[in-house]
Amino acid sequence: MDNLIQFLSQIDQIYLWDLIGTTVFGVSGVLLGLERRMDIFGMLILAFVTGVGGGTLRDIMIGSVPVFWMNNLTYILMIVISVVITILFKKQFSEHWSKSLMLFDTIGLGVFTIIGIEKALRFGLSPTIAIILGTMTGSFGGVIRDILANKLPALFHKEIYATACIAGGTVYFLIDDFVNHNLVVFITIMVVIAVRLLSVKYHWELPKF
Amino acid sequence: MDNLIQFLSQIDQIYLWDLIGTTVFGVSGVLLGLERRMDIFGMLILAFVTGVGGGTLRDIMIGSVPVFWMNNLTYILMIVISVVITILFKKQFSEHWSKSLMLFDTIGLGVFTIIGIEKALRFGLSPTIAIILGTMTGSFGGVIRDILANKLPALFHKEIYATACIAGGTVYFLIDDFVNHNLVVFITIMVVIAVRLLSVKYHWELPKF
Amino acid sequence: MDNLIQFLSQIDQIYLWDLIGTTVFGVSGVLLGLERRMDIFGMLILAFVTGVGGGTLRDIMIGSVPVFWMNNLTYILMIVISVVITILFKKQFSEHWSKSLMLFDTIGLGVFTIIGIEKALRFGLSPTIAIILGTMTGSFGGVIRDILANKLPALFHKEIYATACIAGGTVYFLIDDFVNHNLVVFITIMVVIAVRLLSVKYHWELPKF
Repeated sequence: MDNLIQFLSQIDQIYLWDLIGTTVFGVSGVLLGLERRMDIFGMLILAFVTGVGGGTLRDIMIGSVPVFWMNNLTYILMIVISVVITILFKKQFSEHWSKSLMLFDTIGLGVFTIIGIEKALRFGLSPTIAIILGTMTGSFGGVIRDILANKLPALFHKEIYATACIAGGTVYFLIDDFVNHNLVVFITIMVVIAVRLLSVKYHWELPKF
Repeated sequence: MDNLIQFLSQIDQIYLWDLIGTTVFGVSGVLLGLERRMDIFGMLILAFVTGVGGGTLRDIMIGSVPVFWMNNLTYILMIVISVVITILFKKQFSEHWSKSLMLFDTIGLGVFTIIGIEKALRFGLSPTIAIILGTMTGSFGGVIRDILANKLPALFHKEIYATACIAGGTVYFLIDDFVNHNLVVFITIMVVIAVRLLSVKYHWELPKF
Repeated sequence: MDNLIQFLSQIDQIYLWDLIGTTVFGVSGVLLGLERRMDIFGMLILAFVTGVGGGTLRDIMIGSVPVFWMNNLTYILMIVISVVITILFKKQFSEHWSKSLMLFDTIGLGVFTIIGIEKALRFGLSPTIAIILGTMTGSFGGVIRDILANKLPALFHKEIYATACIAGGTVYFLIDDFVNHNLVVFITIMVVIAVRLLSVKYHWELPKF
């Protein structure tokens, strides 16, 4: 358990999951592009906005410019890889791998939330704003993807998604004063993942009026 | 009259109306969310982008970051309040209160225009750019709301709206050298309100070709 | 030939073509506004986002704020001119001038690409990011235009467009170390124009899957 926590919470591990999250988010962009019969460049753009759109919006709003992916080409590389693997394995992705895809997408959501929160704190912003920015980092890439593909963003009417980020972010600040930081990061990501997976399993929905 | 001018043009009063404007803009977001059968989180997002979207776009473009609502949590609070009261009183809002709503929305439009203009001037920008940024502050929250809800922005084909901001902004610079500043602010807001209300009453429309 | 290169590659000439590009991009916004039966203000906005939207997005992401058109009113003037001439000559634009329009649009695309690349380099960014920003400068005004008009961006499924920018940008960096800078600029623009015109002539399309 100690090893697991150490493993997951080291900054390099977070970075590794950040890249995996970017790639999986990218895959969801390419899948939508395939569905809309876009050409390969359209798919590349959709992969790009889904993978880095949330973090880009966060960076622009807090003034962290040039935005993060301009200083580290690995993000671009991951996006290109997401396009290549989705086209190569498109049958598997849409048929057999959708559950694995959902799991990685959920891990990505948790990691993106933590990255957004911690970047907000480094910029001196308050916990409330940090949670908002964590949620934005995790969920707005998908919103921009849906807008570009001219459909009503899934975020607005389907399943628990952003709510998982908000739950994780809230737990982060509730325990941050009392618990070792690495453990805080680990627990936050686990809360995001747990809320999302439970909501899918038990068909939780936010109230409509 | 002197008292009224003093009352309306003190900075605290502007701030009060700024918050009221944010809330009323938020209400219009929630009403659209209800119409589209979004869940509560979707409505929160729509309220948020409508209430603070115009000012956020302005701040990003002039480089005033972190953007305004990150340094003052009252804006977030007003957005949450707008969601709560719209859900509680949704029948009244859509049936009996639509005229009051329109009035407050118009006051918000005038106040947002002034705030955009004065912020642009503080950043050393020219009158033309200040009028553009005032208009953007007043009317782009609604544009982002409509795009997120996947509909053609009302701004583009319905009634006089942004034109009222442009009229008010033009008057601002025409009289600014000759009149006491508080009075300039008051007159500008009144021009925006007058142009908008008259255009609704007399069904003014911008020309189409 | 020497004269032509000198003519085209002087910074003033680039600036002249930048303004022409802005105007022609603006015209394409107004034409879409006419098609959607927008009022004159709606057309002005569409012209504006098409003409300066790509460069604005670039400036926001690299932190070059206030964005470029706030410091030089000529861009706003060109947008206004694009609205006026399109309304005056709308029959000619949609019937007889569509080929000339396409030619100027393509020249604008090439010039915008160069401007985006060179601005990125001035901000210390890498060649890959510079090509991305050049492509964004050239092609994202049209994407924002299409989103505001609530249609699937043409960029995603029609003809070679952004690919021409990427081709030009790649050539820029391939020859930059060996060739006189003015000539690099000239060749880059020519590559963008050639790829685009050839793709239209021979109905090249990017692969779909």
